[in-house]
Amino acid sequence: MALYFDHAATTPLLPQALEAMMPFLNENFANPSSAYTPAREARKAIDKARQTVAALIGANPDEIFFTSSGTEADNWAIKGALEAGKGRHIITSAVEHHAVLYTCRHLEKQGYDITYVPVDGDGFISPDDIKNAVRPDTALVSIIMANNEVGTIQPLEEIGELDVPIHTDAVQAVGHIPVDVTKLNVDSLSLSAHKFYGPKGIGALYIKKGTRIAALLQGGAQERGRRSGTENVAGIVGLAAALEVSVSAIPEEQPRLAILRDKLIREILTTIPHVRLNGAKHNRLPGNINVSFRFIEGESLLLHLDMHGCYASTGSACSSGALEPSHVLTAMGISHELTNGAIRFSLGRDTTEDDIGKLMAILKKSVARLRELSPLYDDFIKKAR
Amino acid sequence: MALYFDHAATTPLLPQALEAMMPFLNENFANPSSAYTPAREARKAIDKARQTVAALIGANPDEIFFTSSGTEADNWAIKGALEAGKGRHIITSAVEHHAVLYTCRHLEKQGYDITYVPVDGDGFISPDDIKNAVRPDTALVSIIMANNEVGTIQPLEEIGELDVPIHTDAVQAVGHIPVDVTKLNVDSLSLSAHKFYGPKGIGALYIKKGTRIAALLQGGAQERGRRSGTENVAGIVGLAAALEVSVSAIPEEQPRLAILRDKLIREILTTIPHVRLNGAKHNRLPGNINVSFRFIEGESLLLHLDMHGCYASTGSACSSGALEPSHVLTAMGISHELTNGAIRFSLGRDTTEDDIGKLMAILKKSVARLRELSPLYDDFIKKAR
Repeated sequence: MALYFDHAATTPLLPQALEAMMPFLNENFANPSSAYTPAREARKAIDKARQTVAALIGANPDEIFFTSSGTEADNWAIKGALEAGKGRHIITSAVEHHAVLYTCRHLEKQGYDITYVPVDGDGFISPDDIKNAVRPDTALVSIIMANNEVGTIQPLEEIGELDVPIHTDAVQAVGHIPVDVTKLNVDSLSLSAHKFYGPKGIGALYIKKGTRIAALLQGGAQERGRRSGTENVAGIVGLAAALEVSVSAIPEEQPRLAILRDKLIREILTTIPHVRLNGAKHNRLPGNINVSFRFIEGESLLLHLDMHGCYASTGSACSSGALEPSHVLTAMGISHELTNGAIRFSLGRDTTEDDIGKLMAILKKSVARLRELSPLYDDFIKKAR
Repeated sequence: MALYFDHAATTPLLPQALEAMMPFLNENFANPSSAYTPAREARKAIDKARQTVAALIGANPDEIFFTSSGTEADNWAIKGALEAGKGRHIITSAVEHHAVLYTCRHLEKQGYDITYVPVDGDGFISPDDIKNAVRPDTALVSIIMANNEVGTIQPLEEIGELDVPIHTDAVQAVGHIPVDVTKLNVDSLSLSAHKFYGPKGIGALYIKKGTRIAALLQGGAQERGRRSGTENVAGIVGLAAALEVSVSAIPEEQPRLAILRDKLIREILTTIPHVRLNGAKHNRLPGNINVSFRFIEGESLLLHLDMHGCYASTGSACSSGALEPSHVLTAMGISHELTNGAIRFSLGRDTTEDDIGKLMAILKKSVARLRELSPLYDDFIKKAR
């Protein structure tokens, strides 16, 4: 894809990941739970993948459980913690991914208590707010590590110091910035392969040894009895291969992308009038840019960009079909008008400086054209005269 | 794999399925929920796959929901039915797959009432038993369409006539025998791609229009809000391609396999003494053979077969690691000794008459060798003298 600026929605599969997957899509199709030689090879491949993933996030292999997605991992971490314990209270934030937010809302309808801690104008949670929200019946704190819409990286290490079980949705962080479960001191952590150049349909939940989380799926007792369902062998080895490449590349990619990100932000802010950067200047994902263009609709701008072979998002891909304003930008106190005009550009391994130049050329024309057609802009100009 | 007789555990991926998947593992990696052109192509591929699957099982496209496995589909159908309604009673059978059986046992611990209807010596459920078990608070009847261990095909059409919501785990049936949800008159039906030559990590739940089933996973509202999680595009198109080939082949494959199956059963029963066929002679999956070899352990026989490049199973792959006796054979009233000596051979597209001959040669030698070493057989021979 030509000018792909939606790496936060999904990423292309790395050739190394596809190569690792192919034997399990071809000759070795055995069910890893079977008892014969080819099945044991499939089992070994899963074990090796588990070791790889564990080592890359500072965990032990027996703390890694493969799931079908980040969404499943999030649902499991939260519902499983409630089912395994007696607490009926969850603390989360106002800027979680829908997989956490809607799980919490669903639990709220079932009678659980949920505290949604607020964020500041840059999208940061205050660890003090969480500390103050803790109750004797708090079963779990679930806080997103890095926000999918605005890229704000939360002070998770500080939150990890609290004496309460902590889950983090690290789907946007893993493979992009260093993630070490020991340093973060979290009890569970969700990740998803297709966000770090692995295949879709596979994720994992890290569960710290000793953490009580009930199973979400009952059945054939795969994943040591904690996540049933025949293992997606190709997906699992693809996840591990992609994570290995992505994590090894962080020392190089993180600063490279941060420079490109800052360049794009600077160019947008200096060459297009009436634009606002949403989210933090520091502690922000290296590939994330979220900007609001006043007087225009983000959706219309996306269509214009698409016509020029340039792909971006209004925020979360999951809700792209919906016309609800972003709950993340709203929680950050951003006005309805600016929320409507927000666009997320997310950079990745394939993004070059040349791409930034090409994007800027298209973006400037598109914004100008849409503002020409905008009654809001027309009003603004008339008033300004 | 040389002599693969474990198609009920999993099947090789069809070249047509892999071919359908490759574009989505390569150039078109877009998130189908995104709003630009390549994403719409991914969305179209999912829609087309949904139409294909629906047409092949007699459903409407909007009644098909993709899941990560048959296990997830089973868990969803059962837990979702309970959550959406008020009934606290479920009727199931003693010979369900673990994905249904253990889900029911889990719900039983949570205070739900479960009735496990018995089976006869061939593994058949009596529709009358189900009818008699129905209570005013019955939320769901969940009955496996074709048993994974002994291949018994249940009289589901008769059960479908009852005025109570019916789910069927059709994981072993779909793609192997004709499955039409309208004729079966079921309200929900689980299927899994890797059982019909599709990829692992993808399944589907058919939900009849108007059937109330709450979501199992909350999040980005994919699958029309009923199953969240970024769609496994490659898996979905692979599932549909595999189902298309498998269902088209049924008129040819079903009788071909039934002939091979009957030949293998006949050869085993006539050339190896002290053997019992488990399961039905009629209304049995065309590829399923389950036989008990007296005086030996199924596990030991499997090891012997493996050494000769011949792969089979003691029953369900999921519990291959466990040494529990099969709940299916036990429910059929088969003695502990015969349950321990049970082996399932499951045939598939690649099985030839020549394979049957090769298997028989290895099997005869292996059984004879193991009996030579068996103290049970020794006792028997001494007594018989």
